[in-house]
Amino acid sequence: MSVITIERKVLEKNDEIAGQNRDLFRRNGVFAINMVSSPGAGKTSILEKTLEHLRGRIPLAVIEGDVQTDLDAQRVARYGVPAVQIITRGGCHLEANLVRDALANMSLNGIHLLIIENVGNLVCPSNYDLGEAMKIVVASTTEGDDKPLKYPAMFRNSSVLIINKIDLLPYLNCNLELLRSNALQINPGLKVFETSCRTGAGIDAWCSWLMEQSQSAPHTVTRS
Amino acid sequence: MSVITIERKVLEKNDEIAGQNRDLFRRNGVFAINMVSSPGAGKTSILEKTLEHLRGRIPLAVIEGDVQTDLDAQRVARYGVPAVQIITRGGCHLEANLVRDALANMSLNGIHLLIIENVGNLVCPSNYDLGEAMKIVVASTTEGDDKPLKYPAMFRNSSVLIINKIDLLPYLNCNLELLRSNALQINPGLKVFETSCRTGAGIDAWCSWLMEQSQSAPHTVTRS
Repeated sequence: MSVITIERKVLEKNDEIAGQNRDLFRRNGVFAINMVSSPGAGKTSILEKTLEHLRGRIPLAVIEGDVQTDLDAQRVARYGVPAVQIITRGGCHLEANLVRDALANMSLNGIHLLIIENVGNLVCPSNYDLGEAMKIVVASTTEGDDKPLKYPAMFRNSSVLIINKIDLLPYLNCNLELLRSNALQINPGLKVFETSCRTGAGIDAWCSWLMEQSQSAPHTVTRS
Repeated sequence: MSVITIERKVLEKNDEIAGQNRDLFRRNGVFAINMVSSPGAGKTSILEKTLEHLRGRIPLAVIEGDVQTDLDAQRVARYGVPAVQIITRGGCHLEANLVRDALANMSLNGIHLLIIENVGNLVCPSNYDLGEAMKIVVASTTEGDDKPLKYPAMFRNSSVLIINKIDLLPYLNCNLELLRSNALQINPGLKVFETSCRTGAGIDAWCSWLMEQSQSAPHTVTRS
């Protein structure tokens, strides 16, 4: 019982800091997304493709979350965008205070889009608000079509589903239509993209949508 | 600080119950394994192949752990082996008390091998002893070759690594030798198998090894 109380307190404290992060994003006109998925679903590859498409077209920054190593931040650094690495040292998800600390190490001035790549984990990050405008869940076709039913919280709490690695479909026992309908059964409001970082399929549609969202975020805010 | 204390207490309590499970396995001569991986790496497929090979040759039972749904237990049920489903309802890992409760619903009498399939999560289950003889981590080639470095605890705490979906290697940017050497860098003692549930590659070697381990477990124990 005490554990549940502590857990609730942890979440309440997290939500409070997430609210402060969200205010900061709003004041700076930043559209922030929180990318979540299983390990190896392709978050970093999609991020790289996104940076390739959007750098120079919209000012953006990246926060990389990993349990260990800065391998992903190294991949992102090649694109010359501001990036901060959070290493959780065993922690299974990002929390709002870690993002707050990362934000203290970067300037949001002039930034319109912030991409936060969470730890690869299809369970725990679903409960933690970081202050983002929305969660983007990436599901790889290689994981099978049943994952939305088996890990519903992440699909319920996300606004967008990117079904990645569609180039591998001919070699898999994964029914794309079933995967999509399982996800929509959990969350009928999901906006769905289908992508392959290998062939580039679907990346244009995803990036155009993301740029549109970032541009329609309130970049000019009247300060009281 | 209080959260850390609680967390330690949770782990201590878990370890205590895990010890009781381990005693129960020892008294019954059961070799118990705890299968862990990311969602969709192929734990259930490997389990199905293992049941196909070993049923009738060695008495075995299964405990299925899932966040939600009994889809995996349904898959296992087809093989006619005793199986109990644990649904964690959002919980990101199995704990020893859940396994203890599952054991109360099955007879270990005459069982030589117990396969526990954990929740798909490459982070949290690494910390929780269930009373198993060893953890078996499944890594799919589709997740990329860097995962042992990015999620080291799971590879450090496992005794066996099954590299699954090797049939997909021609279509992936995954270097099998690098994946293997990254894993061995984290844990030089890992026993490594390479499998494909699609082609059946490596399944014989894995099952032979598993049967040998189960048979060499102390099935007859002098009770005091």
